[in-house]
Amino acid sequence: MLISHQTNYLRHLLILLVAVWIAPAYAADPLPSWNNAASKASIISFVERVTKPGSKDFVAPGERIAVFDNDGTLWSEQPMYFQLFFTFDRIRALAPQHPEWQEKPAFKALLDGDMKAVMAGGTRALFEMVVAANAGNTTEEFNKIVTEWVATARHPKSRRPFTEMVYQPMLELLTFLRASGFKTYICSGGDVSFMRAFSERVYGIPPEQVIGSVMKTSLGSAKDPLAIVIQPQLDVNNDQEMKPVSIQRVIGRRPIFTFGNSDGDQAMLEWTAAGSGARFMGLVHHTDGEREVAYDRTSSIGKLDKALDEAKAKGWTIADMKQDWLVVFPAEKR
Amino acid sequence: MLISHQTNYLRHLLILLVAVWIAPAYAADPLPSWNNAASKASIISFVERVTKPGSKDFVAPGERIAVFDNDGTLWSEQPMYFQLFFTFDRIRALAPQHPEWQEKPAFKALLDGDMKAVMAGGTRALFEMVVAANAGNTTEEFNKIVTEWVATARHPKSRRPFTEMVYQPMLELLTFLRASGFKTYICSGGDVSFMRAFSERVYGIPPEQVIGSVMKTSLGSAKDPLAIVIQPQLDVNNDQEMKPVSIQRVIGRRPIFTFGNSDGDQAMLEWTAAGSGARFMGLVHHTDGEREVAYDRTSSIGKLDKALDEAKAKGWTIADMKQDWLVVFPAEKR
Repeated sequence: MLISHQTNYLRHLLILLVAVWIAPAYAADPLPSWNNAASKASIISFVERVTKPGSKDFVAPGERIAVFDNDGTLWSEQPMYFQLFFTFDRIRALAPQHPEWQEKPAFKALLDGDMKAVMAGGTRALFEMVVAANAGNTTEEFNKIVTEWVATARHPKSRRPFTEMVYQPMLELLTFLRASGFKTYICSGGDVSFMRAFSERVYGIPPEQVIGSVMKTSLGSAKDPLAIVIQPQLDVNNDQEMKPVSIQRVIGRRPIFTFGNSDGDQAMLEWTAAGSGARFMGLVHHTDGEREVAYDRTSSIGKLDKALDEAKAKGWTIADMKQDWLVVFPAEKR
Repeated sequence: MLISHQTNYLRHLLILLVAVWIAPAYAADPLPSWNNAASKASIISFVERVTKPGSKDFVAPGERIAVFDNDGTLWSEQPMYFQLFFTFDRIRALAPQHPEWQEKPAFKALLDGDMKAVMAGGTRALFEMVVAANAGNTTEEFNKIVTEWVATARHPKSRRPFTEMVYQPMLELLTFLRASGFKTYICSGGDVSFMRAFSERVYGIPPEQVIGSVMKTSLGSAKDPLAIVIQPQLDVNNDQEMKPVSIQRVIGRRPIFTFGNSDGDQAMLEWTAAGSGARFMGLVHHTDGEREVAYDRTSSIGKLDKALDEAKAKGWTIADMKQDWLVVFPAEKR
């Protein structure tokens, strides 16, 4: 061994001392923006059970994998997925170089400012725009483009940067889980390169812990044989049953803690629940029409219907935004 | 903040104390199985430069990404890739349920014990066998199958388990890098689910840090709607220029330290070298015909030709197995 037994003993002693110092700080309240309701209690009780040495539900740190949906779970998704605001801005900026877009109804509608007609084009037209907005860039260029957009773009209603439309209680939950030895991941339908441009700064989640939809990429551009270039082809649409498939592909093990907010998260919640040992399944329920937007069973974005019934039937945790969150957005704290 | 300033101060003080205690233990010799030659010195000097606070080459811990090829870099690959021994054993075991394999020349040759004819079938026939060996299993079943195989199968020459045919100097290097704040990854042509069955136990590399070739998977089997099932289709053949593409896809950033041993690693070495800041590119050169196998420019497995020329021209680190490694396999230490 490289480290002597004596040094190891001292290290363990110090780690213990650190743990004893930190523990009371968290015990005070790791989730101050959560009301003292059932959802908060279920989170804290789960984390205690899987982290307490000697507990029958103890889970080794390496197996403490927590996965979060992004849109509607970590940040808002109304009036539409935030990535679409980016996509539309990008299409508008690129339009002068693409006269052929005038022939495509959805693109033309966007450039004419007719958002109703854009949305009438359906998912297929939207995917086509996402592809047009992203493809042709190197991954480094695209990261820069998103970083600049995030720094300047504003949410149409709040007029705040989109990265401030994140949920304060979920930021606290991410921090609490990491302090409890969890590795926190995003698993979202959003494009992986889009989310990676801000996930570390905003959520403390590094790029390698972001799972999302993936466009094909290849090595080599006209200018740089060692650049990785985004191709105009969607490889993985990371929604519904693709979420567990992508998690297994990237992480190689089943999470023990999964949080979502829509029927698109149902498969990964069920897959999490089906593993052995202690499990936590959670849903954000958008019930607050004043501080955010109230929507669930009939919403075209973030529809929560079957997963809500299943959560109630199986006793999954439901974070009722209106009842359970003392603060929704970080700005309310200031 | 959840942690008070005072607690934070105490934490930093303690972390500093731990660092001071550990440092001399490593300074003694983090790489005892490496001869005191140029390759060892280049590793240690690189790690010092990127980890020393205030150094102009300092790299933040999150950016300290190190990537290793597996076959021929972390473990042996002669007389053929170890995964093929698994594949052949699996084909033999499954043959009674597959009378149609008698009609396929390469499969029939294998079942008849004619290895020369198997190899004459070329890469395509081998891929077909890998697909046949893996597909149809759930990822959990497959993990169990590989785990059992690894526990019992033996290398034809050494008669040791394949997982003991790992290179002791590289195990020390992995440990040294992790102790220096690096995140260590595998990026190999081997199947990702195959490697994940032993990577943590053998290399200390958890499943989420293993990048490899990938077969398509899907959710739901006849028996279990929540099982993830390996499909009979190769999705990514992780060799050559696909290595940087896969690294970007999984990690989302460029490694600063990459070690390979063949022309199949050239693209990821060049891609690593092309990043900004301090960079380490290394090759294992199989020069030891006594303790292992001597091969390079003309080998059909692990051919090292163009990458060797490039390494020499550009001053990349070359670990000459015969000259630079005091110990090759862990068993020699006992």
